Amino acid sequence: MALKVGIVGGGQLARMMIAPAVELGLDVRVLAEEPGMSASLAATATGDYRDLETVRAFAKDVDVVTFDHEHVPQEVLRALVADGVAVHPGPDALQFAQDKLRMRERLAELGAPQPEWAAVSDAAQLQAFLDANGGRAVVKTPRGGYDGKGVRVVSSPEEVADWFETGTLLAEELVDFSRELAQQVARRPSGELVVYPVVETVQRGGVCAEVIAPAPHGAARLVEVAAEIGRSIAEGLGVTGMLAVELFETTDERLVVNELAMRPHNSGHWSQDGAVTSQFEQHLRAVLDLPLGDTSPRQPWAVMVNILGGPATDSLESRLPGALAAHPAAKVHTYGKAPRPGRKVGHVNTTGDDLDATVYEARAAAAFFAD
Amino acid sequence: MALKVGIVGGGQLARMMIAPAVELGLDVRVLAEEPGMSASLAATATGDYRDLETVRAFAKDVDVVTFDHEHVPQEVLRALVADGVAVHPGPDALQFAQDKLRMRERLAELGAPQPEWAAVSDAAQLQAFLDANGGRAVVKTPRGGYDGKGVRVVSSPEEVADWFETGTLLAEELVDFSRELAQQVARRPSGELVVYPVVETVQRGGVCAEVIAPAPHGAARLVEVAAEIGRSIAEGLGVTGMLAVELFETTDERLVVNELAMRPHNSGHWSQDGAVTSQFEQHLRAVLDLPLGDTSPRQPWAVMVNILGGPATDSLESRLPGALAAHPAAKVHTYGKAPRPGRKVGHVNTTGDDLDATVYEARAAAAFFAD
Repeated sequence: MALKVGIVGGGQLARMMIAPAVELGLDVRVLAEEPGMSASLAATATGDYRDLETVRAFAKDVDVVTFDHEHVPQEVLRALVADGVAVHPGPDALQFAQDKLRMRERLAELGAPQPEWAAVSDAAQLQAFLDANGGRAVVKTPRGGYDGKGVRVVSSPEEVADWFETGTLLAEELVDFSRELAQQVARRPSGELVVYPVVETVQRGGVCAEVIAPAPHGAARLVEVAAEIGRSIAEGLGVTGMLAVELFETTDERLVVNELAMRPHNSGHWSQDGAVTSQFEQHLRAVLDLPLGDTSPRQPWAVMVNILGGPATDSLESRLPGALAAHPAAKVHTYGKAPRPGRKVGHVNTTGDDLDATVYEARAAAAFFAD
Repeated sequence: MALKVGIVGGGQLARMMIAPAVELGLDVRVLAEEPGMSASLAATATGDYRDLETVRAFAKDVDVVTFDHEHVPQEVLRALVADGVAVHPGPDALQFAQDKLRMRERLAELGAPQPEWAAVSDAAQLQAFLDANGGRAVVKTPRGGYDGKGVRVVSSPEEVADWFETGTLLAEELVDFSRELAQQVARRPSGELVVYPVVETVQRGGVCAEVIAPAPHGAARLVEVAAEIGRSIAEGLGVTGMLAVELFETTDERLVVNELAMRPHNSGHWSQDGAVTSQFEQHLRAVLDLPLGDTSPRQPWAVMVNILGGPATDSLESRLPGALAAHPAAKVHTYGKAPRPGRKVGHVNTTGDDLDATVYEARAAAAFFAD
């Protein structure tokens, strides 16, 4: 009997787990939010992931439950665990990806390098934080943010007056960084842990635009420190499956933790074509407690460029022939989503020996899908 | 709207088209022979591919019909074409993969290098062929053979007495070969054609056991001649999609054509992990008349070793953890088939800089699944 993996959430991360699941002979099942989602090919159920009975019915027939996103409520997760379901990552770990304040508190306990931060419940507390940090801060809602949503850079408490009604906020130092990096690790329940090379991520408008793997100018010391941060967080938080640690490299050459994701992550899409074991295969192996795969790069450089819907993007299909004709070595990945402006609808991976050529090729191929 | 590809046949070749179809954003649909087949994840219909109305109903909603195997009858194929369905490869090409006598006749017209051969309708004709070819011959039923079935090596007509009742047979010279090779090419309806590097195939008991890509000791002349044979056959026969030409390299260093396959082929499974564009992605691109992908190897060597069910193979799942633990860089592909003795149920791909190490790793990983 094939091992059965249940993925809650029908987005592109679930979609991209389908290929490695088929290769390894896993029976992959998806609980999709609605029909026609990215992972609909493997959707065996449709329903609300916040509804315990819906998730419980889905979980009944699988060997492990894992996730396309981190939004399943703690009470649902804990009820599954109480039912005896294997849930990876589990609720004890996921709470730190679901709540940025809890994450900061726990990372502080672990001694992980972080920006200056404070929990602020009112304007006076935020003003005090601003006064102590040069008059500017990044304010985040602890829950529910993604791709730049739930994040504001402010210089006065009035700019988040509407948010204080929702509860305590997280104020963070506006880090003076030279670039952003991401460290991915995979950890299985029995403890085995593997580390991917640290990568450079380029954000535009709060959304990941490009990733270069490994991070250029990655001195051995940088690579080691990033790996150690990833390893200590995965172990300290008890993460199972893939963990992505988004990092700032500061202008004074320190690394500090920006965000965490406990699932395959946009910063790891390069691994589909650039690593021996992709993050999607690795996540499946990890949550099933199977031995983990080799994380080595296949080529000296891999570059990922996201495809975002533009103001006039009609369909990806109409752009595909041009992109494939001009770039026969580029790997185009699409998500089966309508290309609304700003929406992530696919990405292009390239690999090569020469960084500039590899970056150019990925950008040029992705440009066929933009306006 | 996503481009819709309909695959007739639910075996492992259809299964392995699912991953690249998802990546490229294609809507892939499979007409499976029965429930629970290898490609069942994408099965949208179940039925007999020899029944015109079954195939016609399946073909109604797709942009192109292609195949997991070459067994769809000519009359069904021609009826689809008459309906206006895009069928690739088409019946005019497929007839030469369906009937080995027609293939030999047509390749002779094209001037492709072949073993000595003859159509033999009775014992006297076969005896004459034996007398002219050293007393031994390979006799094949023109239709329906695969993996060594429908093939006998004989030294007297009595050994195929039972076959003469079925019709004319193909007698071929027993080629004195040093090794077997396979040349794959892809061709799209509008004419673009790309060539993969020629590979060495190792057969055991008439079944492909191992493939090394590219073929070791592949002198430039050998590589060119093999590519030219592949190109001329694809163009001469009007093949669309993937074509595999199985070749003998003779002890006097000629190449002669053994068999043809007009679909992804076991000799090309290495390309999933070893080439920029896998044969499965390439086949989909070709049959949709999309621009073809780069066929370059990703690494100096790629090796594929088949996993066959053994006398005591219980399940692949039970062997998977051991294989993955011992060989973290090996890529294990399984077909979702019960491991009956001698049945192809999966394969392992490895890649590397050193041929011996790459061969060893693939064999060692595959051995975990054998008895």
